[in-house]
Amino acid sequence: MPTEGDAPEMALADAVTLDDVRAAAARIAGLAHRTPVRTSRALNAMLGATGLVKCENEQRVGAFKFRGACNALARLTPDQRSAGVLAYSSGNHAQGVALAAGMMGVPAVIVMPADAPGVKLAATRGYGAEVVTYERGREVREEVGARLAAARGLAIVPPYDHPDVIAGQGTVGLELVEETGAEGAGPVDVLFVCVGGGGLLSGCAVAAKGLDARTRVVGVEPASADDAKRSFESGRLCVVREPMTIADGARTPCLGRYTFAMVRRHVDAMMTVTDEELREAMVFAFERMKMVVEPAGALAMAGAMRVARERPEELRGRRVGIVVSGGNIDAARFARIIQGDLTA
Amino acid sequence: MPTEGDAPEMALADAVTLDDVRAAAARIAGLAHRTPVRTSRALNAMLGATGLVKCENEQRVGAFKFRGACNALARLTPDQRSAGVLAYSSGNHAQGVALAAGMMGVPAVIVMPADAPGVKLAATRGYGAEVVTYERGREVREEVGARLAAARGLAIVPPYDHPDVIAGQGTVGLELVEETGAEGAGPVDVLFVCVGGGGLLSGCAVAAKGLDARTRVVGVEPASADDAKRSFESGRLCVVREPMTIADGARTPCLGRYTFAMVRRHVDAMMTVTDEELREAMVFAFERMKMVVEPAGALAMAGAMRVARERPEELRGRRVGIVVSGGNIDAARFARIIQGDLTA
Repeated sequence: MPTEGDAPEMALADAVTLDDVRAAAARIAGLAHRTPVRTSRALNAMLGATGLVKCENEQRVGAFKFRGACNALARLTPDQRSAGVLAYSSGNHAQGVALAAGMMGVPAVIVMPADAPGVKLAATRGYGAEVVTYERGREVREEVGARLAAARGLAIVPPYDHPDVIAGQGTVGLELVEETGAEGAGPVDVLFVCVGGGGLLSGCAVAAKGLDARTRVVGVEPASADDAKRSFESGRLCVVREPMTIADGARTPCLGRYTFAMVRRHVDAMMTVTDEELREAMVFAFERMKMVVEPAGALAMAGAMRVARERPEELRGRRVGIVVSGGNIDAARFARIIQGDLTA
Repeated sequence: MPTEGDAPEMALADAVTLDDVRAAAARIAGLAHRTPVRTSRALNAMLGATGLVKCENEQRVGAFKFRGACNALARLTPDQRSAGVLAYSSGNHAQGVALAAGMMGVPAVIVMPADAPGVKLAATRGYGAEVVTYERGREVREEVGARLAAARGLAIVPPYDHPDVIAGQGTVGLELVEETGAEGAGPVDVLFVCVGGGGLLSGCAVAAKGLDARTRVVGVEPASADDAKRSFESGRLCVVREPMTIADGARTPCLGRYTFAMVRRHVDAMMTVTDEELREAMVFAFERMKMVVEPAGALAMAGAMRVARERPEELRGRRVGIVVSGGNIDAARFARIIQGDLTA
């Protein structure tokens, strides 16, 4: 359980500001989609509130990760751009970096496990990236990545713990508040955001609090991967390795240095939900809102649903922002989860 | 196999014009959603063309049926409005009429089978409609409906074979062409639309042909429910009763008097797809476009996919409109279909 001292935490927590998020928004405009904010009578009835659902499942590559990748790449120097970038991930971050690099003409190397699903390897190559595989168990991906990056002079794009990545993810929160505010209906009162490494939560919290300090920001993570909640509440960075949860996008072992500091500074509360609650939120999104949501992508909605059930007075009559972070799940796995197989 | 004479067919085919569709669009504005038109690199790659997907699964009540219901209700006289309306359906049309009536302050009676799923009965009542049930097998719903309508002086809103309903459904095609044309990218070259009773196809064909006569309009129906294709090709109204297909929204036994005439006049070709092709289109929409599509809602996409596979030159480099007509399927049934159960 490593800890960070207090002094650097202060600086780290200020490493991304509302202005940085605004600058990121300008940088990624035309590259990333401005995803819709959806409303639903059924959702409102369930929440006893006005639900405002930000649909990052409709983002390029099917997840918010594309935003941070875009912003980080746009911030590279011309020399760094020509040399290229590297990312290690078998998930949405890899796809985000691969596509962003392809769109911006930057060479990209993605380090993926050799046993990754063939469709993921093919999709990453399809975005124009070079895929380098490693043997899971025998090699450590960070080491493979660092060695390659050093040898070829590539800039590493980290999945969450970097100010440019965090500022990019923050544009989700910026758009949500801007767009719903533009209806002349006042700010978002409560904002639910999922937590894996904390990049999305940190960025959205900076944006939402910067726009209106009264907005209550709530982070939601899987009950079996509650490292961020424990870190938030104890002030010590907690680690949960390889948690068992269907929310594969939120299995990150711990917050990063920046995201820990920012979550501590800007977030009001952390909560957890069970895999069964994730399943229920996925079914609700599917049936009532016609949305395809991956398990980790349903964290914020499941969190809002639990609060509405257990402490309805916290939401009643409020404007409740819910970030749906991604929709990358194959239909066969979705089917198994729907049928109650939470080991799927 | 009843037939219609030629003389009335001429008049019936002209009962809805582009101006009628435009008037319907003005009437339903603010009531019906203007649904998005989605594009997708994966879809374009598969079609070898620019796919333009009109998302009526995001329409109110989850299907295009709301549009026709709205337009029909808006055309009632004040006296008819106070008396109320009646519809018989256990599907999307019932929900559409119930919600449209609720929003417009018109009393509505929906005749549904007593053994309809509880959630459907509850949802219909939730929209504020009065539900009258009948015993399937023992009673004929049309007779129950007609008796009730006569006794209470209610106007019957038919599911498809009425000019006001057809004009309302035509706003789907109008929006699709208008919106994509507004990008300055030229008209839709080929437009795929599903066929059940033919209301959506007729309305969209009138709109698309009216805006640009060069647009090729293709109707798509299930292989086991090919009454419209046979009617179209033979010139005689064919009937297929209770076809076995997962596309429950397209089990209508035959075209109506108006829709038969309009399809013959304005549609260029009819084609069929198998249930397995519907399943593939549903998976594609789910995984690559994050869209929840019910089986009948996937007909047009499955049709476009088949043409791209069998006769790619027909689509290559073209602008291909695809109407996704609805997204009402519960997650459990979706799961069974994904797993290959085509009796689900």
